[in-house]
Amino acid sequence: MNKERMVAFSDGVFAVIITIMVLDLKAPETPTLAALRGVLAPFAAYVLSFLYVAIYWNNHHHLLQITRHINGRVMWANMNLLFWASLIPFTTRWLDSAWLSDVHHPEIPVVFYGLSLLFTALSYFLLQNMLVRLHGKDSALGRAFARDFKGPASLVLYIVAIASALWNPAISLVIYLVVATLWFIPDRRIEGVLGEAEHGN
Amino acid sequence: MNKERMVAFSDGVFAVIITIMVLDLKAPETPTLAALRGVLAPFAAYVLSFLYVAIYWNNHHHLLQITRHINGRVMWANMNLLFWASLIPFTTRWLDSAWLSDVHHPEIPVVFYGLSLLFTALSYFLLQNMLVRLHGKDSALGRAFARDFKGPASLVLYIVAIASALWNPAISLVIYLVVATLWFIPDRRIEGVLGEAEHGN
Amino acid sequence: MNKERMVAFSDGVFAVIITIMVLDLKAPETPTLAALRGVLAPFAAYVLSFLYVAIYWNNHHHLLQITRHINGRVMWANMNLLFWASLIPFTTRWLDSAWLSDVHHPEIPVVFYGLSLLFTALSYFLLQNMLVRLHGKDSALGRAFARDFKGPASLVLYIVAIASALWNPAISLVIYLVVATLWFIPDRRIEGVLGEAEHGN
Amino acid sequence: MNKERMVAFSDGVFAVIITIMVLDLKAPETPTLAALRGVLAPFAAYVLSFLYVAIYWNNHHHLLQITRHINGRVMWANMNLLFWASLIPFTTRWLDSAWLSDVHHPEIPVVFYGLSLLFTALSYFLLQNMLVRLHGKDSALGRAFARDFKGPASLVLYIVAIASALWNPAISLVIYLVVATLWFIPDRRIEGVLGEAEHGN
Repeated sequence: MNKERMVAFSDGVFAVIITIMVLDLKAPETPTLAALRGVLAPFAAYVLSFLYVAIYWNNHHHLLQITRHINGRVMWANMNLLFWASLIPFTTRWLDSAWLSDVHHPEIPVVFYGLSLLFTALSYFLLQNMLVRLHGKDSALGRAFARDFKGPASLVLYIVAIASALWNPAISLVIYLVVATLWFIPDRRIEGVLGEAEHGN
Repeated sequence: MNKERMVAFSDGVFAVIITIMVLDLKAPETPTLAALRGVLAPFAAYVLSFLYVAIYWNNHHHLLQITRHINGRVMWANMNLLFWASLIPFTTRWLDSAWLSDVHHPEIPVVFYGLSLLFTALSYFLLQNMLVRLHGKDSALGRAFARDFKGPASLVLYIVAIASALWNPAISLVIYLVVATLWFIPDRRIEGVLGEAEHGN
Repeated sequence: MNKERMVAFSDGVFAVIITIMVLDLKAPETPTLAALRGVLAPFAAYVLSFLYVAIYWNNHHHLLQITRHINGRVMWANMNLLFWASLIPFTTRWLDSAWLSDVHHPEIPVVFYGLSLLFTALSYFLLQNMLVRLHGKDSALGRAFARDFKGPASLVLYIVAIASALWNPAISLVIYLVVATLWFIPDRRIEGVLGEAEHGN
Repeated sequence: MNKERMVAFSDGVFAVIITIMVLDLKAPETPTLAALRGVLAPFAAYVLSFLYVAIYWNNHHHLLQITRHINGRVMWANMNLLFWASLIPFTTRWLDSAWLSDVHHPEIPVVFYGLSLLFTALSYFLLQNMLVRLHGKDSALGRAFARDFKGPASLVLYIVAIASALWNPAISLVIYLVVATLWFIPDRRIEGVLGEAEHGN
């Protein structure tokens, strides 16, 4: 089975997810610098979520570029990833409103933001492992993801962040940012294997 | 006539439909676990509708992959499918608000949710039959859909669900979930024919 | 210059335009059949506008399929078409709210709905003529659109509809529907030239 | 590394950005010509922002068409461009509400609209320079952008416009329009190099 259309559909979904989040950036109520303060928290949440969706699109691009073939189960594993990623705009919105509400107890929204990141990460991990099994450990794809350190490390960090949210939500947000930074740093090893794989075509 | 652009446009429409539904998942009003209860019904409806749109995209992918050529009538049959599928976010929204309203009489919204699924299914059926006729019964496409059991079964189940909604809407929702599960189970027969068709290219 | 990316971008814009209109179909306030009456006018407007965007996508598909090459001016003529088409969700929304408001004087919204259709049609006409000039009158494209009857007829009908809206807006809506039907009827002549053009490739 | 998927994803994001802005064009409250006056400012802002996103898409198309290869850093530079462009619907929305508010002090929103244009321009400049370095100054891409006058000129004009907004916001809006016009005028030099590059393929 051919991967092209699954990739095109995923691009469409990622493009809509990353862009509709800007609809939740409401215009400040008055045209003053002071009014901007009320937008700071939603803006910070937007930047973090944009970064996460960008990272997933980037990793998805790398993963699918060395994928040779897919099957029906991979298509559903991919759809599962898109489902969890599509919840990020929702958990981001709750994070925003928690900051802006008078109650100001962001613990629960920070937990759920973390859960949406955790389940997106788990789905990505599942998709990657399914593709590794399908191509074999000796394939370009199998070798590229043989020693995946970032994946499991992110999962552990998300769980730590979710647990600490009930005690101190600021720490959780720092951890979410740390994981994003971890992924943002280019992964030369994979680019290397990708380079080989392309030359080997 | 060439199918590529019709496929690309359909991917775009499916991607927007599946993603804008998340805009109707309003953030809970207070940052508490208790407030999440108010989101449970819309979330369940989101999961069901996401699953349905994912199934349609998946089936559309399989159907169009073995399609060799299209014509102007197929383009309109496809547009008809996209029209009915585009109503799913609307009927999902009504289902949500019925649960959240004080009146709590979800009968009519459950009927209309079912009608949107029924008409989407009918349009898909029409598109599939049009393509079978265009390619002939002995083509790969014709053979792949020669004994279509799921299509007619779904139509019957939708009608049963819509009728029973006036009496017990919970049963209808169970039936909608059963039909989705029916389609979710991989269809090895079609993957088989698809495999042959691709090797035969 | 290569047409592929302009086509892909146009597909994306048409897909978003046709789908975001469903966001303006608000859920009825109560879960009753009676409440559906308040949705009838927006629903009818949605169907009409969906049909129009579908027709434009369809015609754009046909036009670009026999296009061999484009230039910078064609890219802007296409962007101009997308601009006017992007206003259709806005004029549709105004049409909806005119029907639902207590005042119930839909004259002006019906005029503006017609203006959005008129300017989209003029932009399409401009794009088509630009492509005919670029390819020459003897090209497959030039011959396909040599005797364009529907284009000028639509323009005249839109102007009649806009003028009569101030007197009787119902007549205008009937004319808008007539023009849509005119385009919906398949254009065998163009499919014929398209078929030749493809065989001649 | 292959540019195709980065281009497809960018097309999706640009298509959503340019289209969701129409969601902020609220229908006038009454169906009268007078009510349209309240939509004039948002409409003018929509036209300006549509023009800007269209220009970026156009330039991105030209730039990526002569791009031969990309790398991981280019992918992030492109994502950075999409991030700043995605803020344009937000700053446009603030501009709108500043005009409609009773206070009517559009200075700060005009500054932030300019900042969103400035950072989008800086990101585009960064992406272009990264691609020039990657391909070498003697490549088709390097020669096409060797004497980039419009890029630096726009940056200077944006800064002037942002500074003058605090004193007279109308002047800033005129400058934003001037920059858009500057880019709208076709760049025959680049089309020339593009033509050569394509013939040289």
